[in-house]
Amino acid sequence: MKSTRHFAGVDLGGTKILAAVFDDRGKLLSREKKATKPELGVTVVLQRVEECIHEALAAAALPHTAIAALGIGVPGLVDTTGQVVRVAPNLRWQNVPLARLLRSHLHIPVTVVNDVQAGTLGVGEYGTGRGLKSFVCMFIGTGLGGGIVIDGQLYRGSTGMAGEVGHMTVIADDGPKCGCGNRGCLEAVASRSAIVRRIVREIEDGRKSVVKQLCDGDLTRIRSRILATAYRQGDDLVREVIHDVCHYTGIGAAILINALNPQAVILGGGVIEALGDRMLPRITKSAWAHVIAPSAERIRIQDTGLGDDAGILGAALAARQRCP
Amino acid sequence: MKSTRHFAGVDLGGTKILAAVFDDRGKLLSREKKATKPELGVTVVLQRVEECIHEALAAAALPHTAIAALGIGVPGLVDTTGQVVRVAPNLRWQNVPLARLLRSHLHIPVTVVNDVQAGTLGVGEYGTGRGLKSFVCMFIGTGLGGGIVIDGQLYRGSTGMAGEVGHMTVIADDGPKCGCGNRGCLEAVASRSAIVRRIVREIEDGRKSVVKQLCDGDLTRIRSRILATAYRQGDDLVREVIHDVCHYTGIGAAILINALNPQAVILGGGVIEALGDRMLPRITKSAWAHVIAPSAERIRIQDTGLGDDAGILGAALAARQRCP
Repeated sequence: MKSTRHFAGVDLGGTKILAAVFDDRGKLLSREKKATKPELGVTVVLQRVEECIHEALAAAALPHTAIAALGIGVPGLVDTTGQVVRVAPNLRWQNVPLARLLRSHLHIPVTVVNDVQAGTLGVGEYGTGRGLKSFVCMFIGTGLGGGIVIDGQLYRGSTGMAGEVGHMTVIADDGPKCGCGNRGCLEAVASRSAIVRRIVREIEDGRKSVVKQLCDGDLTRIRSRILATAYRQGDDLVREVIHDVCHYTGIGAAILINALNPQAVILGGGVIEALGDRMLPRITKSAWAHVIAPSAERIRIQDTGLGDDAGILGAALAARQRCP
Repeated sequence: MKSTRHFAGVDLGGTKILAAVFDDRGKLLSREKKATKPELGVTVVLQRVEECIHEALAAAALPHTAIAALGIGVPGLVDTTGQVVRVAPNLRWQNVPLARLLRSHLHIPVTVVNDVQAGTLGVGEYGTGRGLKSFVCMFIGTGLGGGIVIDGQLYRGSTGMAGEVGHMTVIADDGPKCGCGNRGCLEAVASRSAIVRRIVREIEDGRKSVVKQLCDGDLTRIRSRILATAYRQGDDLVREVIHDVCHYTGIGAAILINALNPQAVILGGGVIEALGDRMLPRITKSAWAHVIAPSAERIRIQDTGLGDDAGILGAALAARQRCP
């Protein structure tokens, strides 16, 4: 009998680390979570990643040696060999040889992928993108990233930078400032960072919102779950902000539909995970209002079907693909 | 000795018909032009297309029988078999079986393609897209259309509608009305129709411009060449409008660079043909100001290298590809 191989997938975000163990078919065996604490530096973050993997192994009652390979998704630019993180602003990293560093401790093959590209791989293999030849993913989290699948393959573009949908300009000229230095990028109006920035500013300007109580007066603690609770409680400010996010996300989806005519636009990330049921109908309505009509026929706008797991699934899949 | 086959390529626009004869290698042998006069109906337009082809044959001193196949580019939605024009607003056509109608008179195979997709094929085979694996074309003419090449192939999308770059929203919410019914589409601010609409409005509102003299007081006669003359004479109004067109076209190019990370963005169409030397540096500057930096490395923004011939070349190429 051939023994089953296992793969580990890590989603290394600016806020949290998710680590999971999967069997050869992508079945989730265990899943652990930890705060990232990027302010403590690369070495500490790597220790926390390794701890998180060990905890996931323990939860699956598997020995360390059961893991054939590890895939890790990072929020940044990864070199084309899948070894080095060139730049990851939310981790404060530059040129970190992540694969080598993890391999020297874990003694297994390590593949580094961009987190959003990992999520797109996961959606294509296990989520609502399964079986589709062409789709576009948009992940709304701390930032706003995307992945494009053409002919059933992740499309990386000429220099590996395809899918930067968060930096498509949607409000020319007078749009809000984006972290990238430009104005009016989709990320500047529709990411969780943009949402939080606007809510904090309005509360500081005296606007009432349950958000303040929900995060015990500490506005640095606003997360997607708090936004979801406030939205469901009917909070005026949060509803107004989320509805604007839906409006602009729909415009972004429409731009991608007009340009690429995919079979589906698939939405994921923490904000969608928390509020997708309320947001998807509004995003869809806005998208249909901004596409040129005939291309919109039969194009689906939907969630990933994977909740928070798209990234860890895709990272493990990337590891498995390099480990035949 | 094998006799050389010839192919005819037609670019059927809302304003003019271009017909050309090429040899088997795509060498232009002759080229004729005629007004389209779509207001006279399908039958008259088809007669004019046939006359134009006959004139091109005569100019090349070739008999009718020398043509192996005809390709015709039309400004509209073509069915996937390359036979029927589903809808072409600038021709006032709906469901015209163009291939059958032309074949019944000319007795050669006829292939119908979308004009912008034809132009993109021409650019990829004979123009500045030659040898590139991925590029995006933007054609600024009466409307604003595009074509996307991925892995060396024209990318048509899931329902043949990919490349509708003119209907990407660039000015959300308060943008000018577009012919498609939406607001703030790139075509609504950067096509020749948009340029002419704005110039006419400003002149009617009392603004001075040499355009009025250049078209003998008849503002319905504004063409790209008149815009170019006015621009080169330093006309304030035309310069202001064209500079805005460059700004928004650059934003459109940047959206496509951010999303698709192509090797090049290639600009064509009547407006670029007439004013490309002045417009390309400004379009490039605007694009670089709206891309997320790392993806912009090594991406070229340039003209087609084919002047007005991209469409006829691509149409003839489409015919040749179906005629092995």
